[in-house]
Amino acid sequence: MTDSTKDSQASNAMWGGRFAAGPDAIMEAINASIGFDQRLYTQDIRGSRAHAAMLAAQGIISDKDAEAIGEGLVTVLSEIETGKFEFSAALEDIHMNIEARLKVLVGEPAGRLHTARSRNDQVATDFRLWVREQCDAAISGLDALIRAAVARAEEGADWVMPGFTHLQTAQPVTFGHHMMAYVEMFARDKSRFEDARKRMNESPLGAAALAGTGFNIDRFATAQALGFDRPMANSLDAVSDRDFALEFLSASAICAVHLSRLAEELVIWSSAQFRFVSMSDKWSTGSSIMPQKRNPDAAELIRAKIGRILGASVALFTVMKGLPLAYSKDMQEDKEQVFDAADNLMLALAAMAGMIGDLSVHQANLEAAASSGFSTATDLADWLVREAGLPFREAHHVTGSLVAMAEAAGCDLPDLSLEQMHAVHPGITEAVFDVLGVHNSVASRQSYGGTAPDQVRAQVARWREILG
Amino acid sequence: MTDSTKDSQASNAMWGGRFAAGPDAIMEAINASIGFDQRLYTQDIRGSRAHAAMLAAQGIISDKDAEAIGEGLVTVLSEIETGKFEFSAALEDIHMNIEARLKVLVGEPAGRLHTARSRNDQVATDFRLWVREQCDAAISGLDALIRAAVARAEEGADWVMPGFTHLQTAQPVTFGHHMMAYVEMFARDKSRFEDARKRMNESPLGAAALAGTGFNIDRFATAQALGFDRPMANSLDAVSDRDFALEFLSASAICAVHLSRLAEELVIWSSAQFRFVSMSDKWSTGSSIMPQKRNPDAAELIRAKIGRILGASVALFTVMKGLPLAYSKDMQEDKEQVFDAADNLMLALAAMAGMIGDLSVHQANLEAAASSGFSTATDLADWLVREAGLPFREAHHVTGSLVAMAEAAGCDLPDLSLEQMHAVHPGITEAVFDVLGVHNSVASRQSYGGTAPDQVRAQVARWREILG
Amino acid sequence: MTDSTKDSQASNAMWGGRFAAGPDAIMEAINASIGFDQRLYTQDIRGSRAHAAMLAAQGIISDKDAEAIGEGLVTVLSEIETGKFEFSAALEDIHMNIEARLKVLVGEPAGRLHTARSRNDQVATDFRLWVREQCDAAISGLDALIRAAVARAEEGADWVMPGFTHLQTAQPVTFGHHMMAYVEMFARDKSRFEDARKRMNESPLGAAALAGTGFNIDRFATAQALGFDRPMANSLDAVSDRDFALEFLSASAICAVHLSRLAEELVIWSSAQFRFVSMSDKWSTGSSIMPQKRNPDAAELIRAKIGRILGASVALFTVMKGLPLAYSKDMQEDKEQVFDAADNLMLALAAMAGMIGDLSVHQANLEAAASSGFSTATDLADWLVREAGLPFREAHHVTGSLVAMAEAAGCDLPDLSLEQMHAVHPGITEAVFDVLGVHNSVASRQSYGGTAPDQVRAQVARWREILG
Amino acid sequence: MTDSTKDSQASNAMWGGRFAAGPDAIMEAINASIGFDQRLYTQDIRGSRAHAAMLAAQGIISDKDAEAIGEGLVTVLSEIETGKFEFSAALEDIHMNIEARLKVLVGEPAGRLHTARSRNDQVATDFRLWVREQCDAAISGLDALIRAAVARAEEGADWVMPGFTHLQTAQPVTFGHHMMAYVEMFARDKSRFEDARKRMNESPLGAAALAGTGFNIDRFATAQALGFDRPMANSLDAVSDRDFALEFLSASAICAVHLSRLAEELVIWSSAQFRFVSMSDKWSTGSSIMPQKRNPDAAELIRAKIGRILGASVALFTVMKGLPLAYSKDMQEDKEQVFDAADNLMLALAAMAGMIGDLSVHQANLEAAASSGFSTATDLADWLVREAGLPFREAHHVTGSLVAMAEAAGCDLPDLSLEQMHAVHPGITEAVFDVLGVHNSVASRQSYGGTAPDQVRAQVARWREILG
Repeated sequence: MTDSTKDSQASNAMWGGRFAAGPDAIMEAINASIGFDQRLYTQDIRGSRAHAAMLAAQGIISDKDAEAIGEGLVTVLSEIETGKFEFSAALEDIHMNIEARLKVLVGEPAGRLHTARSRNDQVATDFRLWVREQCDAAISGLDALIRAAVARAEEGADWVMPGFTHLQTAQPVTFGHHMMAYVEMFARDKSRFEDARKRMNESPLGAAALAGTGFNIDRFATAQALGFDRPMANSLDAVSDRDFALEFLSASAICAVHLSRLAEELVIWSSAQFRFVSMSDKWSTGSSIMPQKRNPDAAELIRAKIGRILGASVALFTVMKGLPLAYSKDMQEDKEQVFDAADNLMLALAAMAGMIGDLSVHQANLEAAASSGFSTATDLADWLVREAGLPFREAHHVTGSLVAMAEAAGCDLPDLSLEQMHAVHPGITEAVFDVLGVHNSVASRQSYGGTAPDQVRAQVARWREILG
Repeated sequence: MTDSTKDSQASNAMWGGRFAAGPDAIMEAINASIGFDQRLYTQDIRGSRAHAAMLAAQGIISDKDAEAIGEGLVTVLSEIETGKFEFSAALEDIHMNIEARLKVLVGEPAGRLHTARSRNDQVATDFRLWVREQCDAAISGLDALIRAAVARAEEGADWVMPGFTHLQTAQPVTFGHHMMAYVEMFARDKSRFEDARKRMNESPLGAAALAGTGFNIDRFATAQALGFDRPMANSLDAVSDRDFALEFLSASAICAVHLSRLAEELVIWSSAQFRFVSMSDKWSTGSSIMPQKRNPDAAELIRAKIGRILGASVALFTVMKGLPLAYSKDMQEDKEQVFDAADNLMLALAAMAGMIGDLSVHQANLEAAASSGFSTATDLADWLVREAGLPFREAHHVTGSLVAMAEAAGCDLPDLSLEQMHAVHPGITEAVFDVLGVHNSVASRQSYGGTAPDQVRAQVARWREILG
Repeated sequence: MTDSTKDSQASNAMWGGRFAAGPDAIMEAINASIGFDQRLYTQDIRGSRAHAAMLAAQGIISDKDAEAIGEGLVTVLSEIETGKFEFSAALEDIHMNIEARLKVLVGEPAGRLHTARSRNDQVATDFRLWVREQCDAAISGLDALIRAAVARAEEGADWVMPGFTHLQTAQPVTFGHHMMAYVEMFARDKSRFEDARKRMNESPLGAAALAGTGFNIDRFATAQALGFDRPMANSLDAVSDRDFALEFLSASAICAVHLSRLAEELVIWSSAQFRFVSMSDKWSTGSSIMPQKRNPDAAELIRAKIGRILGASVALFTVMKGLPLAYSKDMQEDKEQVFDAADNLMLALAAMAGMIGDLSVHQANLEAAASSGFSTATDLADWLVREAGLPFREAHHVTGSLVAMAEAAGCDLPDLSLEQMHAVHPGITEAVFDVLGVHNSVASRQSYGGTAPDQVRAQVARWREILG
Repeated sequence: MTDSTKDSQASNAMWGGRFAAGPDAIMEAINASIGFDQRLYTQDIRGSRAHAAMLAAQGIISDKDAEAIGEGLVTVLSEIETGKFEFSAALEDIHMNIEARLKVLVGEPAGRLHTARSRNDQVATDFRLWVREQCDAAISGLDALIRAAVARAEEGADWVMPGFTHLQTAQPVTFGHHMMAYVEMFARDKSRFEDARKRMNESPLGAAALAGTGFNIDRFATAQALGFDRPMANSLDAVSDRDFALEFLSASAICAVHLSRLAEELVIWSSAQFRFVSMSDKWSTGSSIMPQKRNPDAAELIRAKIGRILGASVALFTVMKGLPLAYSKDMQEDKEQVFDAADNLMLALAAMAGMIGDLSVHQANLEAAASSGFSTATDLADWLVREAGLPFREAHHVTGSLVAMAEAAGCDLPDLSLEQMHAVHPGITEAVFDVLGVHNSVASRQSYGGTAPDQVRAQVARWREILG
């Protein structure tokens, strides 16, 4: 795209007078955007219809012309959607492709559509509409994923599993609690897309090439017609900035990090060594030769998506770095990055929601793993503080000795006798055994947001209410 | 940091029983964080004081112990601020350094401070407090920069300059309009930090190692004491996620892109070929040998800052990719990136605000540049549409011919005679000359957000009201 | 791709026995690679032909089978190249698509092709062949660009222009010298691709799934047949690593930085304010309304390419981060990034070579710019050291005073009279004027690699010899 | 740094004449580089000594002056190394700090050192020397790591372990083979640093500010004195480019990816669920409360290093994007990124070498894991092809049925009776059991580079010879 408008027959025909040599194959290859910006056809037509209606309402073009334009655009839309439209690289971009076809369809009035408009505000409008829709798609994809996770959390609110730090068993938690951790993350992701959508929901249309226009246009009317909250307040800004795309990419990358973490857990959990979960057939592939082998392909691909989304983000940040105002052709490189990131984010969200819903969770394996590795040592120490009145650090020292004793004996903490415990500290009573089982342990974590099944169920209930 | 707590004398002493070999120099070098996380001392002490007060209020520790702890922490704070505190790499991190000193100062009660807490929620709290402050700093830095730009915009509301696309003169705009474009960008940046601040303003404290705690703590109380809106609702999430830092880095990177664009313009504008502006002595350096040479060092350095901020962002995204819950040591790599990005963003904002305030703008050069290059060709075309009733595309064709005529004659559009114009199109009247001057051109761009001085002044007024 | 082999009819048919549910649309969308890896068809067929020939030579399959396979593959190749081949997403990837078609064409022998091979070493081989070809393409693209730059350097070996630092005039240089700076950069880029090619030129074929094979294969034979220097020495490494792709992306990104710098200069130089160069019509676009406006689109797009190439690089680095050996499905995300980066690099190299060749350089404007701004102040200072015996720092001080004097008088250094100079330093003689002109200045820079026309021509001659 | 030279007393004093206002605190903060570039003091002094000696040899300064300068520089070096040197931010950078001190020490001759030199070629020389040393450090760090891995490979040449794809058991491999995979990767990393070193080993010194110099200097002499292969052939290129730093960062990032993969494996392998290895006490941390818990901190930190190294790389790529020649102040941002990346790479290499050397490998656990999961299914299929003459795809089908039978019976493949096997395919003989054991399996993989202990030992021998 350039800042200028061009003849509607062929965008390079008009340059002919001055441009003796036509753009050759390399230039067409590097310059034409129709190969990818044709994805903006709905937005482009929608914007043009709003613009034409406003021009007529303001008396800038006649009602008859506006009607012809409007009907012609509906025809173009239908031609594109039914695959009858022939895109032309010589016409460079989606705007010129549509306008050229409109001219064929409705004749002279087509030439009036571009009054008080430029490709610069046109593409900014189209792209903003597209990214806004992707925010909606992300919000809705996250909503579905959150619902899937909440459902699994409710089911597993009291399934005990190891809580890891450094991939080492630290303390028992519940599967429901673990699921709800991701609910919180995905909910923040969702709110990031909501904020981004709100911030970007201003209309560039009417900024024209860069300076606004002398025609008596009504930018509030076109803004409203396109669902924008208001027109952008500065025409230079309107055609020059792509921060809405950068914000979308950033929010997508943060979300993709969350997805990658859950995906990594699913890959590890479905290894033969963990066997915490099994992937449904829908989300894994097999081996012709090892039928037992079920490769967590979908989880691995989701894990990888942060790569391309972060890459797309770096790409656009780098492109925008140091560009003087207003439009520079560099900015044509904005779309493919956002398209690719959005497509892959939506795909990953859908796949993850499906996978979470289908996941077979091996409750017994989770509990067995949680019950080994002295995972209730912290509970013992806390008991010593609470019940035996030891200072925190001393309680930890005593606990360390008991764990060492159990380890030497090849057993776990609940297997030690009270006498053995007394050898380390005389203040320990029978009551200590209440906190040494993993179920007791998780049940005791009643602090707000803690892993106790009660707490998890309370959070599930809160989320059910939020989700409606 | 690890998920566990350690002896307050020396963090590696306690491992001695089991860890026959001490960590050697390489391990200390790769493992210790005190070299950088000492910057969190205020936050760490603030968090500990809130925690101790809550423990006492809930009857978990005695008021006397809480008081001793509180006073001890005030002493530690003062020791650090007066440079008397000796940081020890053997104590690994800021938390253990402070706790060890507290034990020396107040003895046994120090051992009770860590009740119902872990280094995992402690560091998450400290870091969140720190990043929250940086959001505030960014908001305030942006506020100052916006004010500086608004002031310059008001001053130059009717200074005509070339509006560029592709760094080629496209249409005249006003300097005020150009400044206000950046006001809009920086205002969106500001709102991004406001959104991020709101989203991150939840307290991780009380999440303990990862599962919550069995002590009867009051997380709402500590949240309130630390200025958080509420406690985080999931303890695993609280200690595992760093999305608040990623969001801060993303918002910083978007802001840094905006800064890089303005900086690039300042560098280009201060070249001998442009001479649109001169940098103040405060923001440039000279050459001992070419006293006339004034290098726009500050602008160049600001332009470069997007590099390290984007780099910091990529670094943390990459670190967080695919980490299983909950805490992993990888996450220790979060701080230096955010510290560096925040420091450099604040510096760049301050430098830019100073530079914009000090800038000498060469109004005459701006106007001269705007007046060449047929910059009012679009105005002419629009006049033909409006006044002579030509369809848009035909008007452009006529305009092209007139520009070609002027170019051939070695003059600009206003220098053509009416007769010459008639040779191209007979419908042109004397009134056309009203739109061919750059002042008329900009004055005519009265569409909302357009470059007309009236519009610019209206935006300045709107911003003055918003800024208060 | 997975590590396993699959039925040649339909890759998901065979899973049917165990996988009750078929992969649905989302899974197909996220899992299938045929949409992009079909670009590897030549490499895949080439690899299969080499493999079949080797199997026969080793007596693992019969000559008859090998012949049938070989002929069938030639048919497949021809079908693909003539657009008759129907790619199927259900068959997931290029390997299964080709094998399925081969089975239809030649029947049972097709089933023997995959003996002692796996999709893991197959895709590693295909991709390595593809990237190796891109190294060759980059080398040849750089070669053409270097030749274009050398030609311009020779032409402009004595055209004086300003040498900038901080975009401020510092000292006069020659246009040829400036061009030769890029020759050096592009030559290093070229050598990076040569090194990368050499390092990656080892054959993964025969590594099988990951462990090698028990069949008596000859990996040296297939390596030789495919133009590899030798087989890779470790089968796990062969199927697991993608460092050759990372190295290609890194070399591409460095090259793209160089291109972005030259492109930025072309954009700035073609501004109305600089007018150092004009873009040929082939590499710029016009405006229908401002015929004089020639937008340097190609230069801007080349400048932007570093964005997507760096983004692709970050994407693959992030994908590969922390992947356990051997193959993980994440690695399927390697190809699109490299495809996109390679395509865009080759396009940018071709466009830049074309643009440099076509560029109109405005020699008079260059010289005029070089002659202003006291650009020979350094020459004056050096003269004072050499001829008047002043210490360097004092010479600089004297020069500073003379420049200040000239600036106050509104003239340049050569316009000062000898008397005026004597007022500042009595040791100055008439001979000083020899160094104050820009031609004298550049002619004097005779140090090796300096800007003197002689030196530039010597470098041109050196490069002509190197390029052959 | 700027392109110009400055008074040796205080770099801002000289600007006083023209720069009425001194740079204030913000400017000093953003502008001064002494805070980090003081790390270049050895390189700076070395470069200055070589330059002074050359100036004297060429008769440009007197021998006496050269001697005074040389001795003064030795004194400065010793002052810095003994901590007696006071760095001054007002003097901006390491070059001015050293020159100012030199002037105090030796007086007037100090003013002659900067003859025919500029800070631009000086800093390019210093930095290139520093990066070259880091290449050497990386080469030597990789060498140590390779040696450690080779030693472990030899020890475990016949230890059977699961070969994973998708973190699912695929085929048995040997521990030695797995180690040797990393040897190959690290060896390629090493060769990348060797190539980079060779490419960067050209001297910028004598390029002066950008254009070369009129003094009769001998750039070949200084190049040789500093260990460079030759002077750079273009003075503009010499002061403008930082591709050597980008290449160093790229090579570092690729190496860091390899490190992250091994580190991830170590983290997973040391989980309670895998227990393939245990970290030595030197490279892990414990928990005061769970003495059995050994957190693989060093492995996690190494895994994270790719983050900051990739971030540093993105930072410098972004900084360099689109910078016009020659020096721009943006380039001052090059050093911190490279310093940080180099420091962390060397640390990670040292830590990994130490960890690999100290690792406890649990051979029995490895073998047990390898023996489950039908890991020899491929061997069975290959046997059917080789011995029973089945086409590959049919052999896979038969194998699938046998695995399904074993899975249903709750046993592994070697536990099936010959009769049970005959029910699936009558051609199977007693000899099949030879390939069903994991030791037989690995022993059979005799293809070049395969996992057979013989092959592994051959590779170990090859590497021992290469390493010398």
